[in-house]
Amino acid sequence: MSFATGMINLSPWSLLFLPMSFPDFSQQGYLLLAEAAPQTGSLVLEGTLLSLVIIYFASKLVGEICARINLPTVLGELVGGVIIGISVLNLLVFSEGGLGGSEAWVLQLLQGTAGLTPELTPQVAESLSEVISILSEMGVIILLFEIGLESNLKELIRVGPQAAVVAVIGVVVPFAAGTAGLIAIFHVATVPAVFAGAALTATSIGITAKVLAELQQLSSREGQIIIGAAVLDDILGIIVLAVVANLAKTGEVEIGNVIYLVVSAAVFLIGSILLGRFLSPYFVAMVNRMETRGQLLIASLIFAFVLAYIGAVIQLEAILGAFAAGLVLAETEKHKEIEEQILPIADMLVPIFFVVVGAKTDVSVLNPFDPANREGLIMAAFLVVVAIVGKVVTGLAVFGQPDINRWAIGVGMIPRGEVGLVFAGVGSATGILPKSLEAAIIVMVILTTFVAPPLLRVVFQSAPAAVQETG
Amino acid sequence: MSFATGMINLSPWSLLFLPMSFPDFSQQGYLLLAEAAPQTGSLVLEGTLLSLVIIYFASKLVGEICARINLPTVLGELVGGVIIGISVLNLLVFSEGGLGGSEAWVLQLLQGTAGLTPELTPQVAESLSEVISILSEMGVIILLFEIGLESNLKELIRVGPQAAVVAVIGVVVPFAAGTAGLIAIFHVATVPAVFAGAALTATSIGITAKVLAELQQLSSREGQIIIGAAVLDDILGIIVLAVVANLAKTGEVEIGNVIYLVVSAAVFLIGSILLGRFLSPYFVAMVNRMETRGQLLIASLIFAFVLAYIGAVIQLEAILGAFAAGLVLAETEKHKEIEEQILPIADMLVPIFFVVVGAKTDVSVLNPFDPANREGLIMAAFLVVVAIVGKVVTGLAVFGQPDINRWAIGVGMIPRGEVGLVFAGVGSATGILPKSLEAAIIVMVILTTFVAPPLLRVVFQSAPAAVQETG
Repeated sequence: MSFATGMINLSPWSLLFLPMSFPDFSQQGYLLLAEAAPQTGSLVLEGTLLSLVIIYFASKLVGEICARINLPTVLGELVGGVIIGISVLNLLVFSEGGLGGSEAWVLQLLQGTAGLTPELTPQVAESLSEVISILSEMGVIILLFEIGLESNLKELIRVGPQAAVVAVIGVVVPFAAGTAGLIAIFHVATVPAVFAGAALTATSIGITAKVLAELQQLSSREGQIIIGAAVLDDILGIIVLAVVANLAKTGEVEIGNVIYLVVSAAVFLIGSILLGRFLSPYFVAMVNRMETRGQLLIASLIFAFVLAYIGAVIQLEAILGAFAAGLVLAETEKHKEIEEQILPIADMLVPIFFVVVGAKTDVSVLNPFDPANREGLIMAAFLVVVAIVGKVVTGLAVFGQPDINRWAIGVGMIPRGEVGLVFAGVGSATGILPKSLEAAIIVMVILTTFVAPPLLRVVFQSAPAAVQETG
Repeated sequence: MSFATGMINLSPWSLLFLPMSFPDFSQQGYLLLAEAAPQTGSLVLEGTLLSLVIIYFASKLVGEICARINLPTVLGELVGGVIIGISVLNLLVFSEGGLGGSEAWVLQLLQGTAGLTPELTPQVAESLSEVISILSEMGVIILLFEIGLESNLKELIRVGPQAAVVAVIGVVVPFAAGTAGLIAIFHVATVPAVFAGAALTATSIGITAKVLAELQQLSSREGQIIIGAAVLDDILGIIVLAVVANLAKTGEVEIGNVIYLVVSAAVFLIGSILLGRFLSPYFVAMVNRMETRGQLLIASLIFAFVLAYIGAVIQLEAILGAFAAGLVLAETEKHKEIEEQILPIADMLVPIFFVVVGAKTDVSVLNPFDPANREGLIMAAFLVVVAIVGKVVTGLAVFGQPDINRWAIGVGMIPRGEVGLVFAGVGSATGILPKSLEAAIIVMVILTTFVAPPLLRVVFQSAPAAVQETG
């Protein structure tokens, strides 16, 4: 009670924050920006704290509901984001969304409690949007680093040819069918069509592995092939993403660019893995000789951020570098320790990414009562069909395994997730994806993620898997 | 080799990033800022990755050297920051430092590798400075949350009156002597003198506990009193910080403000602890019923960030709220788990704070060959003497313990650290602290931290402590 009184009484005090003597920045030529900075600094921190509380609250509230009804929690983070985002409650500020401005609830709260003035609002909104955006990008970098750490090149090589066939078919079929269908049926331009087709490719390792573990099928032959294919599929998906994101940025499909990017993606990924394998004994020896707290974590983050930076500046993606760093460190004797230490950091940062992706999504384009939305909805339906059929057929292609549960493999590849959402996020950031198609991709990710867990339960029960102890 | 070629060849490509079709933001009134944002977004991410690599590299390089010569690693992070900062190498960009701009190495590297143009440099510099600043403030919030988690109200109550006397004397004597001396001898204005005096108060729990553990004196009676006093001392120091920071912001010493702030700090801290104790069983029950990954961590962070936000908007400090949240959660049965999960996050974010504090410090004011610096150097010498003597006398005040090692207790209270640096950082951020006095505070923190570990070894060896098994 005394808190509430204190906060109300403080409104006039807030004025004391504003007029202060600042050092003379005008000499530096940053007149406008530098003058704004000292006034807005603590407001941006307060806005960041508020935004994070909102993001975490939304991610856990809807995430817990999803967990209760046996749906992946990543879905809850996404839906939570949609609810607090520009489509519904408009709590967070995104200057590039166009809807941010003074209407966002977080800015209204700062005006009411922290002395934010209407004059300062545009600068605070811009800084806050930038900070939340960087935190969410750090989240996806940490996520891909974690996926890399959880991946296992040796396991992939062991389950071998079957996994490779499943992965390649599961990338080629949805990509080709999706892209061709969007161009032929919906007259979508080539670049966004390729982008949407690419978003259909990558199976979510996280969701698939979690569902398999819940069904106790991780060690079955089907489970091994699914995990192996999902790992390879993820690498292919990220290469496709890098290629497609660059196409989206340049706005053209130059075959020279494509070849350059495929080659540089492959050289970068394979090169950093080979170089990393060569250097990793020295990495382990160095970390073992270090004595300060957090030495393993900081050394790993330096490695991940350097590769992420190189990945970004050679026009691939920062996340590709982080993934390669994870793959390399997964091969070291320290990988369990690194995973354990990255876990809380991922728990802290990754939800920011998914919630922000959801929050930036304008789902109003999927309102069926608005005639302008029909094309987006039909595209979403088309993408969902291609996404499911394109993965289910992969099970039929498994060779040399007569008594294998082909349906289980195909269905196990259905859930898209992190990488599919990364496509939507990158497409949104580069501005190349029409809003209807971006929303259709998100609907596709949501539906494939929804449908896979119950389906997988059905197909594993109808024909018990051939249990095989490997390892 | 192909990487290097690729990077050089890409320079003309970078131009393709720039001209793109953006949504029409002019309607929103954010013309300048919004047009800059989509172009600068990926550059800010790349700059953030680079800055973090530089920060981590500096913190570990110098931190490891400090660990080798038995000095606290936090010292290494600070000195590492000084080396990469505006005083020496000027690698990072700080727009408020005035020295940032195009001279910072991180911006030159972005110009050379990532296609940053001179026109975009001011905006990217401003955004990058803001992002690094928020990350460093998140670092100190997490640090104080962690210190709160490691504190123990019950332990403090048990070691009781001796610890309280040591803590109060160890706050009052350096504060009074430091403030009075600065005003009387150096003619410093009241507000900065009070600020510098306040920076002399808080013993570093982390450094003291670590040194005691290394000497295996944590369970001795002296060790118990030191830790107990340091915990209370830290709380007093943070209340003093909140009061003084507000004085610095308003620029006046109004007795009404002081009373209001002491009362509101006490009400906020005690209120949130009592309320938190009342609510914490529900917190534990709720977390136990949650099923999603990271539920304990996210629930804890929501709690910490909400209290930090309230602490900030009622004109105290965000870190005070984070500390209170840590104290409350330290009382729950989950505190070990929370500590374990906060550890990697602190390892990731806290060094950013210390390195940034060091990097923003202009140590050139301590150059003894420049006559203009003499006053700063003499002030630093004065602060160091007050800081050491003001804590050593506390051991003499311990009553009812005839055979106790009084020198050990006094020397154990010497190291300042996190909280002292927080004072320097807050003073720097509010602009109220003259550069010479700010640098003098940092020299004081460095020297007290330097001198305590070897001194403590000497005083414990000269008169063996009365070992006592408690608990």
